[in-house]
Amino acid sequence: MTIASNIGKAHLHPDRLFSADTNIRAVAREIYNSIQGLPIISPHGHTDPRWYAENKRFDNPAAFLVIPDHYVFRMLYSQGIELEELGIPSVDGTPVEQDPRKIWRLFAKNFHLYRGTPTKLWMTHSLSEVLGVDEPLCEASADRIYDHIEACLASDAFLPRTLFEKFNIEALATTEFAVDTLEHHKTINSSGWRGRVITTFRPDDITNPQHPLFQTNIKILGEQTGEETSRWTGYLEAIRKRRAFFKEMGATATDHGFPTAFTTILTETQCQNLLTKAIAGVCTPEEAELFRGHMLVENARMSCDDGLVMQIHVGCYRNHNPLIYKHFGQDKGCDIPTRIDFVNGFRPLLNEVGNNPNMTIIAFSLDESSYSREIAPLAGHYPALKIGPAWWFHDSPEGMKRYRRQITETAGFYNTVGFNDDTRAFLSIPARHDVARRVDSNFLAHYVCEHLLTLEEALDIAHDLTYTLPRKAYKLDTQVKTP
Amino acid sequence: MTIASNIGKAHLHPDRLFSADTNIRAVAREIYNSIQGLPIISPHGHTDPRWYAENKRFDNPAAFLVIPDHYVFRMLYSQGIELEELGIPSVDGTPVEQDPRKIWRLFAKNFHLYRGTPTKLWMTHSLSEVLGVDEPLCEASADRIYDHIEACLASDAFLPRTLFEKFNIEALATTEFAVDTLEHHKTINSSGWRGRVITTFRPDDITNPQHPLFQTNIKILGEQTGEETSRWTGYLEAIRKRRAFFKEMGATATDHGFPTAFTTILTETQCQNLLTKAIAGVCTPEEAELFRGHMLVENARMSCDDGLVMQIHVGCYRNHNPLIYKHFGQDKGCDIPTRIDFVNGFRPLLNEVGNNPNMTIIAFSLDESSYSREIAPLAGHYPALKIGPAWWFHDSPEGMKRYRRQITETAGFYNTVGFNDDTRAFLSIPARHDVARRVDSNFLAHYVCEHLLTLEEALDIAHDLTYTLPRKAYKLDTQVKTP
Amino acid sequence: MTIASNIGKAHLHPDRLFSADTNIRAVAREIYNSIQGLPIISPHGHTDPRWYAENKRFDNPAAFLVIPDHYVFRMLYSQGIELEELGIPSVDGTPVEQDPRKIWRLFAKNFHLYRGTPTKLWMTHSLSEVLGVDEPLCEASADRIYDHIEACLASDAFLPRTLFEKFNIEALATTEFAVDTLEHHKTINSSGWRGRVITTFRPDDITNPQHPLFQTNIKILGEQTGEETSRWTGYLEAIRKRRAFFKEMGATATDHGFPTAFTTILTETQCQNLLTKAIAGVCTPEEAELFRGHMLVENARMSCDDGLVMQIHVGCYRNHNPLIYKHFGQDKGCDIPTRIDFVNGFRPLLNEVGNNPNMTIIAFSLDESSYSREIAPLAGHYPALKIGPAWWFHDSPEGMKRYRRQITETAGFYNTVGFNDDTRAFLSIPARHDVARRVDSNFLAHYVCEHLLTLEEALDIAHDLTYTLPRKAYKLDTQVKTP
Repeated sequence: MTIASNIGKAHLHPDRLFSADTNIRAVAREIYNSIQGLPIISPHGHTDPRWYAENKRFDNPAAFLVIPDHYVFRMLYSQGIELEELGIPSVDGTPVEQDPRKIWRLFAKNFHLYRGTPTKLWMTHSLSEVLGVDEPLCEASADRIYDHIEACLASDAFLPRTLFEKFNIEALATTEFAVDTLEHHKTINSSGWRGRVITTFRPDDITNPQHPLFQTNIKILGEQTGEETSRWTGYLEAIRKRRAFFKEMGATATDHGFPTAFTTILTETQCQNLLTKAIAGVCTPEEAELFRGHMLVENARMSCDDGLVMQIHVGCYRNHNPLIYKHFGQDKGCDIPTRIDFVNGFRPLLNEVGNNPNMTIIAFSLDESSYSREIAPLAGHYPALKIGPAWWFHDSPEGMKRYRRQITETAGFYNTVGFNDDTRAFLSIPARHDVARRVDSNFLAHYVCEHLLTLEEALDIAHDLTYTLPRKAYKLDTQVKTP
Repeated sequence: MTIASNIGKAHLHPDRLFSADTNIRAVAREIYNSIQGLPIISPHGHTDPRWYAENKRFDNPAAFLVIPDHYVFRMLYSQGIELEELGIPSVDGTPVEQDPRKIWRLFAKNFHLYRGTPTKLWMTHSLSEVLGVDEPLCEASADRIYDHIEACLASDAFLPRTLFEKFNIEALATTEFAVDTLEHHKTINSSGWRGRVITTFRPDDITNPQHPLFQTNIKILGEQTGEETSRWTGYLEAIRKRRAFFKEMGATATDHGFPTAFTTILTETQCQNLLTKAIAGVCTPEEAELFRGHMLVENARMSCDDGLVMQIHVGCYRNHNPLIYKHFGQDKGCDIPTRIDFVNGFRPLLNEVGNNPNMTIIAFSLDESSYSREIAPLAGHYPALKIGPAWWFHDSPEGMKRYRRQITETAGFYNTVGFNDDTRAFLSIPARHDVARRVDSNFLAHYVCEHLLTLEEALDIAHDLTYTLPRKAYKLDTQVKTP
Repeated sequence: MTIASNIGKAHLHPDRLFSADTNIRAVAREIYNSIQGLPIISPHGHTDPRWYAENKRFDNPAAFLVIPDHYVFRMLYSQGIELEELGIPSVDGTPVEQDPRKIWRLFAKNFHLYRGTPTKLWMTHSLSEVLGVDEPLCEASADRIYDHIEACLASDAFLPRTLFEKFNIEALATTEFAVDTLEHHKTINSSGWRGRVITTFRPDDITNPQHPLFQTNIKILGEQTGEETSRWTGYLEAIRKRRAFFKEMGATATDHGFPTAFTTILTETQCQNLLTKAIAGVCTPEEAELFRGHMLVENARMSCDDGLVMQIHVGCYRNHNPLIYKHFGQDKGCDIPTRIDFVNGFRPLLNEVGNNPNMTIIAFSLDESSYSREIAPLAGHYPALKIGPAWWFHDSPEGMKRYRRQITETAGFYNTVGFNDDTRAFLSIPARHDVARRVDSNFLAHYVCEHLLTLEEALDIAHDLTYTLPRKAYKLDTQVKTP
């Protein structure tokens, strides 16, 4: 972050996110100063491995900062700006804006809409701290800032690997579906570059009968592994082989993103019947739910064997808006959280593997009402269960405060796993980690000033939340060993 | 607010509701000072249009401040005081207290019960700021204060229109059912008085088969419009005509108050069958729900045509206490919020009209767990959907804080619509708007002091929340145009 | 609390739990000072009446502080420490650690896991304020502190009755099942000791068909009362007799702990059929729910007659972990809260007895989302319904803050009932009450500094919350009179 390091500071106060109370602020600063320089551990995210593999220059400012970030364009869409105007690529041939400067101007003109949102924090951090922009973004400054960013992107200082190193990222995980060939990870691994970019095994495409590619990918899965994937035993063996391949390529974790927390244990006959229906594309919604619920348990069993950490992200109604889905496909800001029932839903899973202290399940919740009621009590009991950080819509200062205030008293700090940035926007990585470090520092400072923690304890916890816990929870501090 | 303007202040501190932190307090004051004098926009409420039409003196203090306010008497009832003792009019001939002074004394004696509640804030504001009462209300002061208020009410300074002007109300909406003749609004409109009092179209009496007046009002609806309301097409056309009539009388919005967020789209045949059953009074609860769910979509379609803003208030179990309902009827403090599912419930509605940027749906939630989980993510995506303010039980300092903290980060400020007082108690209008302005100022001051907003931005947002947004969202800043 | 009164203070700051803001802190201190010395009212808890009856020395430090406290060992278990290592008694013969010093060391070594939890507060209070320990607990100090506590326990100053008096407990309730012989309470009552230890009637063992002892205890119930408990009328009469016996032994309240808030009113025929099935052990889960739901109403009716206050604790999935249940039985930290529906669930109950101002139902919720949505609106209306304090997982500083912030504005302070410690850990009683008094003082100080309450009002409320309300709500200030 060397370009223009002294400008832009006016728009990003060094004490941002710290309490206005001078005592708390002083302690928060001290805690933050102790962790600000720690390497970034990014064990869950969605940046494109191609960037690190090819190490090519990023495209124009709109393609870099606006188009890939659904946090950015969903807000604009909610205020009546069409996705077509923002150049979001369509999946059905709908023509969309191609002029990046026009898109950027539209974004800049409406930048006031993000007031009070984390997107504004992240974007301002990216512009000011990484790109060295020295004035606020608005309609009047749009062109000047566009030109400035374009110039940055043209320089070697903004190549993906250079930024990766500048950001002080110690380890970063991307996420790939089960039949991905992981070619970019192969390239990275064999390139001699010292940056640690690993994959994550996300098998939803072959475990969720309602996934649009399920039938296609089950076939590919069979070809990739030489297993008869229409037979239950072959199907399971094929998954095991893919897990082994992902692990070989560096993965330390799997990820499972389902609509509910439902899990179940079925008989082999039931499983075979459901698999047959799923391949034939004739599962009812209830049968699909049964299949997914059982497959969470199967993957948990495999994790007990191969040591991959199991992440479960649940509670989202995907593609709520069919019009947008039709024109623009998935991940376009149309996913909406729903109520979740971890207590009944996770019970079969936890009864099966939850008492295994060598197993790690990291659960993420989009339903904040489950924090103090369900997820903290569960993680404060089952040795296998850990709580993922405040996620997605809750990856925000207020969201993180609620998370710590509602979880810590029952689950403590040590049943949590530090921060995930979970982002598709590369420049938001340091911004998001900075917000998390500041919010945690401020939270701990409150407890110090209310005499619930000593400053020494708080410094210790801050270091753990930032560095020790994510490395340990995601097994990034060791080789993954098969027991 | 000229009477006795310097007394009573001791009981209503000028810095009330601002943070104890001196930095935040100073900023909050500055923000509040910038909006304190703005006109009141009251786009949703339940005051009696007769007051403004007839402009007669208000009755005694009990009839003015206690009897019409269910916030007031529900608390007393919860502590063992019978509604009969409070002079609440019965619907079944049960005799109730007729002496307003006795009622007032009972209220005054128990005024400590409201400690920590918004009712205390509102009532103290009414007594101190509007009525110039200069001592705290309690058993000992009850008679003196009664006499003082009685004297006020006898003066021209306390006539409804005079107060309306003194309160600096720019526009105020009342709420009337679909077959209301709007005689008071006619009187107001033709009176030459410059006060803007408009109606709101609330068709629950003809769209909810479980409404006690459904059958009666469907008949009246037919007579009023010359449509055959037992036929589906005639029924719809009759509603269109009533909407047009309300709009002609000044309405810019409709309001729909249903127990759940369920919406659906049925075939015309299904609709006709349900309408026939509803008129015959033989709908099952499930059929009534289907009918209501479809009628929300029909009214939304009509809004797309006639431009009326659509308000949806859902999630309340009405008349939970049959004993009170039997003796005293509805709106007697026996309505209790329930869990709500906007994500599944609103999906058919939003899929039908949610992508229309010229449509406005304002949704209100009594289930705070839906704020960050459902309503903010939905409004942060669908262009038609805006979020109504913290409502009813949540129209309170803590409720408003939770609302802003749980909604802003995902939906921003600009998918909200400012404040609604939603009151039946005339004097509580300035009190409620004052509380909202103070709480918003204090919220923004926190963000300024934590360096998330500049003071300039905060001043700008405060003005928008108080004045610009409600005028725009409710189309009070323009003539309603039929597209 | 005389032993070593000046040491250990460094680890327990006199201003702990008060705001860092100097204005609020000063007010909080003043309020706290006014209530700090008030007697402890403990109307709901689970300490062992044998302690007070026999007044024998407590066992070793591990048996005293670790083994009986599921808050303590569930956290250790969640971090991979087996209950066997902690000496938790097994129910199936599984061998467990017998060396209390080893158990203590394991606990001490892992004491950092409790950072940020109320357990740390309570334990530090017990060690520092009651036991006079003068250094922080950790691996290095484990043996020294063990020796110190052991020496304490050997002295007369630490006999149960002496501690009870030292703690300034005015009244303490234990909880016994319906067929308990109450021998310890008899001993206490006839001992001449002035300590007031009363029982609470908890009939779950005879009203919940899924209780493991249901069939056994129904038989015992018949024998104890001479009633034919397989007949509906005999069964009810037997319960009435047991209630009378408990009341005679000092009970002022009953307690009902069920998984849901469901209540219902069945016909006598339905009741007899369900009772017959329940005794035969053939109830379906739905039938058990019906039976429990009706029995809540029956017990409420009996409370209307005999004046016993009715406590209802709902919303917990008991024994979520079958492995632990098999080896160690119930109450081992495996109970997990669930969503709760008071609005529909309690409606039959409240319609039956809720309008009776001489009836008291105290409802406890583990689902914080029900606070502002359901429980405060219900208690702010029905005269019989009061809100129990923040309970179990929410008996914590943050939990109490949320409770007050989410409940007060709708239900006020006077529909709540003060604090319950609800503990099995004797030394945690003064610690828990101290935390509650501090948190309430700090909450009230906020309101004073934001000019929502005067200091006089706050002092008055603090006294009520600490002393007046629990004595009144639990009828500890009067003889229980049968109307």
